[in-house]
Amino acid sequence: MEASHLEKCLNLVPQSYISQGQQFRASRSNLVRILLEKQKLPEESWNDELIEFLLSELAQLDSNNALGNCGAGEREGRVYSGLVARRNYRLVHGVGRSGDVTAVQPKAVGSSILNQLCTKLTLDFIRIVGARNAKSCIIVPMATGMTLLLCFLALRKRRRGAKFIIWPRIDQKSCFKSMMSSGFEPIIIENQSDGDELRTNVTEIMESIKRVGAENVVCIHSTTSCFAPRVPDRLEIATICKTHNIPHIVNNAYGLQSSKCMHLLQQAARVGRVDAFVQSCDKNFMVPVGGAVVASFHDDGFLSEVAGSYAGRGSAAPTIDLTITLLDMGVAGVKMLLRQRKENYEYLRDEMRKIAEKQNERLLETPHNPISMAMTLSSIPGRDSDITKLGSMLFTRRITGARVVVRSTEKSIEGHVFTGYGSHSNHYPHCYITVAAAIGMKRSECDVIVKCIDKCMTSLKKISPHKGSLSCNNDE
Amino acid sequence: MEASHLEKCLNLVPQSYISQGQQFRASRSNLVRILLEKQKLPEESWNDELIEFLLSELAQLDSNNALGNCGAGEREGRVYSGLVARRNYRLVHGVGRSGDVTAVQPKAVGSSILNQLCTKLTLDFIRIVGARNAKSCIIVPMATGMTLLLCFLALRKRRRGAKFIIWPRIDQKSCFKSMMSSGFEPIIIENQSDGDELRTNVTEIMESIKRVGAENVVCIHSTTSCFAPRVPDRLEIATICKTHNIPHIVNNAYGLQSSKCMHLLQQAARVGRVDAFVQSCDKNFMVPVGGAVVASFHDDGFLSEVAGSYAGRGSAAPTIDLTITLLDMGVAGVKMLLRQRKENYEYLRDEMRKIAEKQNERLLETPHNPISMAMTLSSIPGRDSDITKLGSMLFTRRITGARVVVRSTEKSIEGHVFTGYGSHSNHYPHCYITVAAAIGMKRSECDVIVKCIDKCMTSLKKISPHKGSLSCNNDE
Amino acid sequence: MEASHLEKCLNLVPQSYISQGQQFRASRSNLVRILLEKQKLPEESWNDELIEFLLSELAQLDSNNALGNCGAGEREGRVYSGLVARRNYRLVHGVGRSGDVTAVQPKAVGSSILNQLCTKLTLDFIRIVGARNAKSCIIVPMATGMTLLLCFLALRKRRRGAKFIIWPRIDQKSCFKSMMSSGFEPIIIENQSDGDELRTNVTEIMESIKRVGAENVVCIHSTTSCFAPRVPDRLEIATICKTHNIPHIVNNAYGLQSSKCMHLLQQAARVGRVDAFVQSCDKNFMVPVGGAVVASFHDDGFLSEVAGSYAGRGSAAPTIDLTITLLDMGVAGVKMLLRQRKENYEYLRDEMRKIAEKQNERLLETPHNPISMAMTLSSIPGRDSDITKLGSMLFTRRITGARVVVRSTEKSIEGHVFTGYGSHSNHYPHCYITVAAAIGMKRSECDVIVKCIDKCMTSLKKISPHKGSLSCNNDE
Amino acid sequence: MEASHLEKCLNLVPQSYISQGQQFRASRSNLVRILLEKQKLPEESWNDELIEFLLSELAQLDSNNALGNCGAGEREGRVYSGLVARRNYRLVHGVGRSGDVTAVQPKAVGSSILNQLCTKLTLDFIRIVGARNAKSCIIVPMATGMTLLLCFLALRKRRRGAKFIIWPRIDQKSCFKSMMSSGFEPIIIENQSDGDELRTNVTEIMESIKRVGAENVVCIHSTTSCFAPRVPDRLEIATICKTHNIPHIVNNAYGLQSSKCMHLLQQAARVGRVDAFVQSCDKNFMVPVGGAVVASFHDDGFLSEVAGSYAGRGSAAPTIDLTITLLDMGVAGVKMLLRQRKENYEYLRDEMRKIAEKQNERLLETPHNPISMAMTLSSIPGRDSDITKLGSMLFTRRITGARVVVRSTEKSIEGHVFTGYGSHSNHYPHCYITVAAAIGMKRSECDVIVKCIDKCMTSLKKISPHKGSLSCNNDE
Repeated sequence: MEASHLEKCLNLVPQSYISQGQQFRASRSNLVRILLEKQKLPEESWNDELIEFLLSELAQLDSNNALGNCGAGEREGRVYSGLVARRNYRLVHGVGRSGDVTAVQPKAVGSSILNQLCTKLTLDFIRIVGARNAKSCIIVPMATGMTLLLCFLALRKRRRGAKFIIWPRIDQKSCFKSMMSSGFEPIIIENQSDGDELRTNVTEIMESIKRVGAENVVCIHSTTSCFAPRVPDRLEIATICKTHNIPHIVNNAYGLQSSKCMHLLQQAARVGRVDAFVQSCDKNFMVPVGGAVVASFHDDGFLSEVAGSYAGRGSAAPTIDLTITLLDMGVAGVKMLLRQRKENYEYLRDEMRKIAEKQNERLLETPHNPISMAMTLSSIPGRDSDITKLGSMLFTRRITGARVVVRSTEKSIEGHVFTGYGSHSNHYPHCYITVAAAIGMKRSECDVIVKCIDKCMTSLKKISPHKGSLSCNNDE
Repeated sequence: MEASHLEKCLNLVPQSYISQGQQFRASRSNLVRILLEKQKLPEESWNDELIEFLLSELAQLDSNNALGNCGAGEREGRVYSGLVARRNYRLVHGVGRSGDVTAVQPKAVGSSILNQLCTKLTLDFIRIVGARNAKSCIIVPMATGMTLLLCFLALRKRRRGAKFIIWPRIDQKSCFKSMMSSGFEPIIIENQSDGDELRTNVTEIMESIKRVGAENVVCIHSTTSCFAPRVPDRLEIATICKTHNIPHIVNNAYGLQSSKCMHLLQQAARVGRVDAFVQSCDKNFMVPVGGAVVASFHDDGFLSEVAGSYAGRGSAAPTIDLTITLLDMGVAGVKMLLRQRKENYEYLRDEMRKIAEKQNERLLETPHNPISMAMTLSSIPGRDSDITKLGSMLFTRRITGARVVVRSTEKSIEGHVFTGYGSHSNHYPHCYITVAAAIGMKRSECDVIVKCIDKCMTSLKKISPHKGSLSCNNDE
Repeated sequence: MEASHLEKCLNLVPQSYISQGQQFRASRSNLVRILLEKQKLPEESWNDELIEFLLSELAQLDSNNALGNCGAGEREGRVYSGLVARRNYRLVHGVGRSGDVTAVQPKAVGSSILNQLCTKLTLDFIRIVGARNAKSCIIVPMATGMTLLLCFLALRKRRRGAKFIIWPRIDQKSCFKSMMSSGFEPIIIENQSDGDELRTNVTEIMESIKRVGAENVVCIHSTTSCFAPRVPDRLEIATICKTHNIPHIVNNAYGLQSSKCMHLLQQAARVGRVDAFVQSCDKNFMVPVGGAVVASFHDDGFLSEVAGSYAGRGSAAPTIDLTITLLDMGVAGVKMLLRQRKENYEYLRDEMRKIAEKQNERLLETPHNPISMAMTLSSIPGRDSDITKLGSMLFTRRITGARVVVRSTEKSIEGHVFTGYGSHSNHYPHCYITVAAAIGMKRSECDVIVKCIDKCMTSLKKISPHKGSLSCNNDE
Repeated sequence: MEASHLEKCLNLVPQSYISQGQQFRASRSNLVRILLEKQKLPEESWNDELIEFLLSELAQLDSNNALGNCGAGEREGRVYSGLVARRNYRLVHGVGRSGDVTAVQPKAVGSSILNQLCTKLTLDFIRIVGARNAKSCIIVPMATGMTLLLCFLALRKRRRGAKFIIWPRIDQKSCFKSMMSSGFEPIIIENQSDGDELRTNVTEIMESIKRVGAENVVCIHSTTSCFAPRVPDRLEIATICKTHNIPHIVNNAYGLQSSKCMHLLQQAARVGRVDAFVQSCDKNFMVPVGGAVVASFHDDGFLSEVAGSYAGRGSAAPTIDLTITLLDMGVAGVKMLLRQRKENYEYLRDEMRKIAEKQNERLLETPHNPISMAMTLSSIPGRDSDITKLGSMLFTRRITGARVVVRSTEKSIEGHVFTGYGSHSNHYPHCYITVAAAIGMKRSECDVIVKCIDKCMTSLKKISPHKGSLSCNNDE
């Protein structure tokens, strides 16, 4: 409400009270001003009503919310259900325009500002968590896998004729699908054992390049965040890319929550080449599934090409959820979340080690993986199917997300057969269970998880093998 | 609340009252039962609280909302902001699994049911509006253009080696981009004039097939809903596809709102071949931008392949918005909306004709286009830039979506240069303005639009040409 | 958002778009300005987001929502639950101050403005519906009965020593209770039959005054809105009050919805004396139960004395609900509701007449009652208990609010025994059923009610008398 | 959703998933069952969606929400505005019936259950915080002052002819008004100094009783929670009441937050007589202003008489807010809040002592007051008006609720002139400032308050006296 409006209330309440109220308003207004001016995360968390105030103000700039607006086209932002209008803050025109998912829409000025602003806040977040030299980012209203696909499609124009994507194996389906759907051919690089860790086989990458020719490689597609015992890919990939002039796309799916992953990226860009790194919104920002962020250390136009490869407007839902969340966090919240995650990781690792010892198992030594950890499962008698029962037991006890991996699994995806699927390796020597310390996890969850794994293992060792439990082990 | 719970309140209110209350509950409960049993649109509109009850009940089946749930993975449906949780009804796991956007998630049973149910309701909608033989559909959490792209990518596996998409020209950017991003090469078929109408040049399509070989054609990509004076593509395309064994993907972007478009599709499938038809959620269902529906007259697995080409989980936002809206509409609402749209079309056409006459213009005769209409702009003096001013004038007067098309426009998209861009033709003989009678439009909007066009034209004819107005004419 | 803030977004969207958005905002802002300036009902309905915008802006003026506010007292507007804060729009300080329920609170400037504004809008409403000369009103966060009590308590100071309230009988419990709780002694004036109608016995009022002495009468407490066959009290009461210098408090519980009731009041004030008229919020404004409005044709300070008799702050809930509703209605909505109610009354009356004839009953002729009507129940065989069964039958068939009145009922309230309770008369000659055409009723409800009464009567006449049904007849 | 409904989804998701979901539902359902069965505060906090589920389920039992309901009366729970319906959870029939604010409504079974349940939970709360022998309570939808008035009005029937209320002075306006509005005559008992404390003058009470005769005393109206240096009234009052057979009504306005106040009450009931104790909802439960709780250690029917004195239905808003809040707190939350408040009291007292010393003032020794404390203001030069400036300074610095009390104030309320108004005494020897440690206060608030008082005092001592500041000192 403008100051001048309040003055109309002088016959209702005394002037001095109105002045006091105006001061209250001014404080709030000031926060909005600073946000729009700096376009960075606020230091402190915004409260809910201020966040909703901003969204509501932006919605007012969209034509569908304008008083007296008449629609003569086929896409006029009409909303049938009041529930739908309300839950979307009446921001219904989506983001982007026909040919560019980051473009500004004349019909939807508020939605456009929101999207741009969200991008700036997200970039600030990315810098705060460790990629200090990140220069730009875009928010894509699709899953991480689809967003990787979009990057590959965008590269097609830059790499006419190239058709191979070099990919250090990671057993995550959508990751592989993103390459298959793009029409390019993945060159799968098997991981190398290094102690318990599975690490990038740099030699094989070099040989592959030599074999097919650098100019025929669309890009190298590496990974930071992954399940132990695999660890983030080696820095050398970036150097190879630089040397051979090959684009480098990094799947940093849930790496924003780990300063280690971010520093690795930052360093990779410094010493080598990183064209873009892609991350999931839900896994890093604790929002519902639906969006991804593509970021870059350069302003070289590649992100525009990615955005320009998205045909049509996109959902504003990821932008809305992300903006709300970032304002709700503030810099203080971000730092606290990262610190807590790191502490939880250490706590969970120590507690897992204890039960490993108790259960005659071993926590695999994977110091390069800052988020996930794995414990061997060699003491459970019986066949693989008996071991995988552990996964179901945990699931029915409301422990979700733990993965039990056995050696024997073969899986065919789009015609490629993976041996030892789930373990990122043809012949990893152990069966194991992985658990992760992810952002937003509570200390009490660590305790319950550890206790429950311990209990289930003990009871698994006692009972005789059986069948038919809920199959939910491989959580993809 | 279960009946047994209410019985606990016997010390608070008399038994007879509780029985009465239970009857009230039973009526509501019955509606839910019927919905889940029939999996069809309810006859009558559901009220908001019943809709929210259903969503809330489904959310309770997702693991992230389960009491005592502990997350040991990297994607556990944690939500930071209460606002975000609330606006998403705590349905945060998205839809699909890594490799299939329609797959069921063990962690998210409620979200999965919701998605499946929404698909069934949408299929029912499609049948009600005219495609009675439609057999299946999927909801894709991406724009129409991206969803077309997904269809093309899915076809790659079926059409190894093929690289051309035959495409009767329609000047809609994301439509063209969908082909360019897929990596295939579009063969652009110029439209034929037929009176004022621009119609499919069937001969040229035949010749193109002959030229490149049917086996090298990925698909024919035809269009139903479009701006006048272009009209829906001819039925013969379906026959050609059948004869030459070429897939046929139809861009039915906003065709669900027109029984004519739907009957055309229905007939095409009967006499020829239609592999899939794609429509926008926002344009047909009056929901926010973000989703599309791919439907088919067959159960031949093609939709599964499309779903399986989506790498990763997708946003549940389109599903949530669509489900709410469909329940809010009910069959009665759907029929009313379609009837009103048709009546508005006729009314708008008649009114436009009147001002055309008054302004010495002509409403183009495009009887095959059931949604959009165009009026010549030959009486405005000056150059094209003076004519396009009409668009800006309307926009600043809050008439959105009207398009002013002049002959001279050239536009380059991804290297292809289109002459007469916007008019779907290299040499359409008139400048014109288009308006559409879209679903959800109000009668009063028709009146304002017509009056405003009349007024703006009159004043344009008076004033001398000038520059610098808001450029918002081509609404893509 | 202030205009200056939007300018900060110039690096995000073009200036011309921002200007467009600003225009949209200005239209909305203008509506707020007009409301605060005129302090009258808007002509047209406000949409939900504008209403919530206003509430949210006002809430920002309350100290509990001010950034950096620190509470050093015992009542600081702290709210524990986010749900509670949200549903109350963070307006938590209530209305009024310790000694005056209309006073302005320094800690709660926004709540205070809201309350004052709501009063102005309500006064405008009262004038629009017919009391054109109404001068002031206050909103009291209590039921109508309690508010009548407050008026009586306030009169004590003006009428030292007086102890009688003259009250033409109306069989409504809280009405009678309001007098009993005040400590005054009601003088009950039995109604006179006039054809089917029960009307004020003016002679008996005159005699009562003579008997106890005018100076000993606290006030005459008359009634407008009531159930047929009782009709609004006669105008003469106002004249008597004027002549004898006796205060006159009118129970106009649901009379705001009837222009007849309002014109009666308006005329009473013109020819005689009306100190205050009291009406229920829920019954007239379609809001939840909880508030009442006291209005006056004068600015003589009586309403201030009433407000000053409320000890403590009051709930802001009635104010919030009323403000939202009045803005949602607008003048146009108010007029439509009144017109529809009048039409429904006539329709319901005609339909009831038809079934009366069919059932060998008679619709009582009560032309002075503009809202309620009654039909005799003489054709149902058996005892009174068999007739009252009709009420239960209707209730279990979801017809609520119909009252079946039999002659035999005796009821003791606070020591007074009423004969023929429910019929407003010791010896009304008929058993009957009443139905009302109240504000917000739908035409379809009239149909269902009439049909259901018809059906139930028919079946009652067939079946043999029995017992044990849900007792819900007298809806007080 | 009933289990049987979910089974309908077997064609959408596998049986094993549905079973899992059912288990999730069962956990939640179990919490509801326990609540309704035990009718006590849950041990742990309920989450928002469970609370809203309960409210929504109860709303479904009210006739206005029943499908197919038809209203034939004048009060049918129709709601015009969707916003209003939503914010009230569609619970619109209020609480109580015409003659009893706690009675069950046949039309509103859900609202009735809610109200009864809320009463049970509140009673449980009262016991938990210290009044272990409390037997019953009622929730009254009015301010504390009005609720005291209601108690006095209810006593009239028990104490025919009595007309005096004996009242140890407390300078709180609505407290005094409650007696004045009731029509009874207060006998004001001046407080006695005891060190810095102001305490009950028992002798004068005894003399008053002797003077007017015990049978002419309606009740003694004592106070627990109050501003220092006044302290809770002496236990002896209860003994006197018992001895002389005089009712005893205790104003325990914000005493629920202090175990000391509650134990005092508990003891008073044990050794003497307490008919009812009245407390504010907002001050104790951190809900918006609007309700009060009357509690009793007996089941002697007095609370029913109080409830029966409320004429008409009441707002359900206090019940809704209170129920939400109590479920949100749980026993764990209640205990934490009380502990924190106590710790804050001690911390604030110690910090205030420090600045008192620094400023050459003294924190008054008032050990019997467990919530409020006072510091002398003798070092500020100038007249009283200069001292009161401190209040305004604090207010404009967003410290609300601190009271500056000077000796000279005279105030007339309803004809009674109070000397030294605000200080509860005709001749308290000091000017002072009071601050309170109330429930929900944060530690950081204590710090800011203390720092700000210190700073303001320092600057007041420097600047020369001036005028015209915001008058907000006495916060009533």
